[in-house]
Amino acid sequence: MSDKIVFYTAKICPFAHRADIAFREIGLDVEKVEIDLSNKPSWYKDVNPETKVPALTIQGKSIAESLVLIELANDLKPEAGLLPSDPVTRAQIRFVIEYFSSKVTSAWYSFLRDFKKENLKNYLDALDAAYTRINDLLLEQASTGPYFLGSQFSLADVAIAPFLIRQEASRKELFKDAQIEAFTKYPRVKEWVEGITSRPSVKDSYPGDDYINDSFKNKWGLSSL
Amino acid sequence: MSDKIVFYTAKICPFAHRADIAFREIGLDVEKVEIDLSNKPSWYKDVNPETKVPALTIQGKSIAESLVLIELANDLKPEAGLLPSDPVTRAQIRFVIEYFSSKVTSAWYSFLRDFKKENLKNYLDALDAAYTRINDLLLEQASTGPYFLGSQFSLADVAIAPFLIRQEASRKELFKDAQIEAFTKYPRVKEWVEGITSRPSVKDSYPGDDYINDSFKNKWGLSSL
Ligand SMILES: N[C@@H](CCC(=O)N[C@@H](CS)C(=O)NCC(=O)O)C(=O)O
Ligand SMILES: N[C@@H](CCC(=O)N[C@@H](CS)C(=O)NCC(=O)O)C(=O)O
Repeated sequence: MSDKIVFYTAKICPFAHRADIAFREIGLDVEKVEIDLSNKPSWYKDVNPETKVPALTIQGKSIAESLVLIELANDLKPEAGLLPSDPVTRAQIRFVIEYFSSKVTSAWYSFLRDFKKENLKNYLDALDAAYTRINDLLLEQASTGPYFLGSQFSLADVAIAPFLIRQEASRKELFKDAQIEAFTKYPRVKEWVEGITSRPSVKDSYPGDDYINDSFKNKWGLSSL
Repeated sequence: MSDKIVFYTAKICPFAHRADIAFREIGLDVEKVEIDLSNKPSWYKDVNPETKVPALTIQGKSIAESLVLIELANDLKPEAGLLPSDPVTRAQIRFVIEYFSSKVTSAWYSFLRDFKKENLKNYLDALDAAYTRINDLLLEQASTGPYFLGSQFSLADVAIAPFLIRQEASRKELFKDAQIEAFTKYPRVKEWVEGITSRPSVKDSYPGDDYINDSFKNKWGLSSL
């Protein structure tokens, strides 16, 4: 059994980005393999039968699923503090991750899939409801950021940053005429978005707004609204 | 702040059942409040703004989401052994939970939503692919059961048992003419289904097949195929 840890990833993918951030935060030494999602190598199904990224081979086992991998990062090095020790705070972190996925990320994907001006209002209404609640969840943890817990960077930030950074990229480029007030109604959210998108582990593993917007335009056939 | 821990649940709900099993396994002393999902009390949105079950109030905080709550149970009492200490095994447990939800449970809900003989084959094909893979995942852990890890009952069993026990109830009652070979092709799955559905924490918190089938028939307007 090889000691080498191999991380299968793709720059475009926010799920894979989660794992990349977590591995950087704990200082895990991985060999990175970029998978071309538009032309997946046939051997990849032997690593991950679902042929998705991210996946990790470690101790001769293959592990997939981004949330599983970020929990694994925490379990490999709990002293990095990605989860605090208090059980209820850990639960609140896991809850906000699920909440953000089911409310913000799913609204964003639906909008991209059916990208037209008429759908913008629905999307913004969904975001408004979600960010109102997320602002409260943030305030419940700490009155100021930059992170979910305040000063401690945690799995909440790890899991959400890749989506926020991509949503911000697409917002600036694709909705540019659409007058979206970027988070001004939710001051704690605004500070949080700034805080997590400028964290070194997040920025250094992000391919840049142009890369993301070009990929979106190609993949989904989008142009600015 | 009250010391009392209140658990909001509903007998019909497999997600709430997950939490119930986990709380029994760790011996958590909760006050149980049954929520009538067809006529939810208006105060419930103050407990859980998404107005779903399960939810728990603990240390003055409300926590929702079944997977968050079973992880919380483990964090409250790690010595109950719902997650072993090895990080990679923990990851494999979290992976099978996600795999089962995304492949088996989603196929089951789709089938119930559009319940007719013509859809049975699709459903069974989805189950066949999923159980073939799950049988391998089980064998990777241990050559015999009764549980996912072998002899140790874990969060994999907690999270999946409520769905398996309900799927078995609906299979026996609703598909009774449909010649489903119940798991005979996947011996380790078969042993596992028997093992987890007869675990006291699972059985004692289950309202019984008749209750489940009657609720399904009412809610989804189903009759046997
Ligand atoms: N639930 C998975 C989702 C991963 C996922 O959807 N990855 C996409 C790229 S962002 C992928 O690999 N798609 C390729 C495919 O589905 O064939 C996770 O959290 O890791
Ligand atoms: N993702 C949630 C799902 C919980 C859920 O869907 N609960 C259902 C009952 S099984 C519910 O409360 N439905 C009421 C509603 O949606 O209004 C979890 O894992 O806890």
